[in-house]
Amino acid sequence: MIYKESDHVRLSEDESAVVFLDQSALPLKREFIETDDLKRMYDAIYLLEVRGAPCIGIFAGYCTFVRARALAQKFGQDKNSWLEELSKETKYLNSSRPTAVNLSYAIDRMMKKASSLTGEDVPVEGIVSALRDEAVKIHEEDISMCLKIAEYGLSLIKDGFGILTHCNAGPLATSRYGTALGPILLGHERGVILRVFADETRPLLQGARLTSYELDQAGVDVTLICDNMASMVMKQGKIDCCFVGCDRVAANGDTANKIGTSQVAIMAKHYGIPFYVLGPVSSIDINCKSGDDIVIEERDPDEIRSKFYANPMAPASVKCYNPAFDVTDHELISAIITDRGILYPPFTESIGSIL
Amino acid sequence: MIYKESDHVRLSEDESAVVFLDQSALPLKREFIETDDLKRMYDAIYLLEVRGAPCIGIFAGYCTFVRARALAQKFGQDKNSWLEELSKETKYLNSSRPTAVNLSYAIDRMMKKASSLTGEDVPVEGIVSALRDEAVKIHEEDISMCLKIAEYGLSLIKDGFGILTHCNAGPLATSRYGTALGPILLGHERGVILRVFADETRPLLQGARLTSYELDQAGVDVTLICDNMASMVMKQGKIDCCFVGCDRVAANGDTANKIGTSQVAIMAKHYGIPFYVLGPVSSIDINCKSGDDIVIEERDPDEIRSKFYANPMAPASVKCYNPAFDVTDHELISAIITDRGILYPPFTESIGSIL
Repeated sequence: MIYKESDHVRLSEDESAVVFLDQSALPLKREFIETDDLKRMYDAIYLLEVRGAPCIGIFAGYCTFVRARALAQKFGQDKNSWLEELSKETKYLNSSRPTAVNLSYAIDRMMKKASSLTGEDVPVEGIVSALRDEAVKIHEEDISMCLKIAEYGLSLIKDGFGILTHCNAGPLATSRYGTALGPILLGHERGVILRVFADETRPLLQGARLTSYELDQAGVDVTLICDNMASMVMKQGKIDCCFVGCDRVAANGDTANKIGTSQVAIMAKHYGIPFYVLGPVSSIDINCKSGDDIVIEERDPDEIRSKFYANPMAPASVKCYNPAFDVTDHELISAIITDRGILYPPFTESIGSIL
Repeated sequence: MIYKESDHVRLSEDESAVVFLDQSALPLKREFIETDDLKRMYDAIYLLEVRGAPCIGIFAGYCTFVRARALAQKFGQDKNSWLEELSKETKYLNSSRPTAVNLSYAIDRMMKKASSLTGEDVPVEGIVSALRDEAVKIHEEDISMCLKIAEYGLSLIKDGFGILTHCNAGPLATSRYGTALGPILLGHERGVILRVFADETRPLLQGARLTSYELDQAGVDVTLICDNMASMVMKQGKIDCCFVGCDRVAANGDTANKIGTSQVAIMAKHYGIPFYVLGPVSSIDINCKSGDDIVIEERDPDEIRSKFYANPMAPASVKCYNPAFDVTDHELISAIITDRGILYPPFTESIGSIL
């Protein structure tokens, strides 16, 4: 079995449910939730209990299997009704968040497998079992992709480097090493001395709650800053490069990632600091010609006004604009570090050459 | 009497104490505090109950008078002991925050007045009365400076403009119109339609708690965003110019203002948007040759980790770096709008010409 008891997204022991660490409660509580309920799965993604593009993909794979298994008990050998219902359910699950490619990628992959086997002479149990293997494979591939990204990323940094990161693209966002944090964690294991500055990443504070927590636990030298302090630490010469994850990369290299990423890139360019995007090739959406084609999720204004606070920090009458992601122009990106190598500009060519 | 019952910093009715609105409790509570106690005055500044560079100056003027009056009762006609003690007390008050020039400016001005009159044939009561007039004059001058800044700033904007602002440089930070918000409020009074985007300004959220509150109360169209969303709204073409205040301007135009201001300027330059600094000439410190000479206050890490939150958002073991201000390079500033006109680059010349 590929997943371990320590994995933060996995199947339950009897494989009837998916188990996930509620990341929205970190670092205060470390609580695992088990569910076979579709609405609960949707909420887990929507409420960011499960978050991080690759992690959402892994979760969606297991959810699809768990629902396929449950629906098989309901529909027996009526494969077409089973497939139709599973297709409806996964469409709903896919609507939980629009921006990351991994969610739709994992669901498409699972449904293609289900659909192709439904047309063959395979009993429902056989299809369900194949879906289990496919979900595990998505997870397994992520672990291996992260390790490759970490190795490629590590080749770009040196002992003593200061690294700025935004949001969380560590193990919690993926499987074991993470994407943006992969080279840092792998380097740390190998004795490379690094100093990391983590943007807290408003409004949901993934940098404070998850990145600083993960790195601190791993023993990495990490300093938490507010998002608006990045310019100051860059100006002071404390930053040698920036590492960020990605939710969707367009064919020209434009990259959607957590809101605020584009400003880190603009500042890095201003100060002459390399800005690296890290993610698996599966984050590249060749159907998006540029960032203009990427749908940006807009979220609840109360995430800005009142979430996490003991009391609201702005009057309820004040309008808020709360985009969850922004697009970093490809011209601001020094390189995209993938599991199949480091892509340099011009990205239309380098991306084209590996896909 | 220059100050009104509605002023958020003023003397008490019998003039034995200073009265101030506790801005740290806004927008939840609107509470006035009255004190004649030196430590309480220091805390009001240190804890940001009274904040905003010009407002701190006004407050320090009244505090110096209130303490001068109280000490006169203690020392009688022993003018030298009275002056010595007042000097000690104001030095302590001046140490409450290092970055804004207005605090030391107001205290120096009050102490020069006290000192020169002590050498003359004036009874203590006479000196104290002159100090009262001087404090009122500082306040009065600020009101008039703000109005002039507002007029100059208004000449740079048009109906339909989108304006980004950072932190709070409105009436609460000054006296009546504010500096950065002055042109907006004056324009609004005159029927100019403006859309304002207010950075929430972590970690102390002056943009959320004060700017969005002030503008909303005044009926201005304001949208609150997190600091890391400025790039996105600029890219969308929503911003025609940026207005920010200043805590200290060096002789070459380098400007210290609330942490994060320099990144707004870097982004504005990237997107080709004018970036304006607004403040009275008294914010210019000709003794600072450049931003390198400006002392930047570093504050408690818990402002990042836990302040305002129902629960801490980062483990206590995680290091934080919490500078309260940063310096915006003069090359990023389109113009400095003062009460004596609009200064354009090269600033060394334009600043030199008005001082």
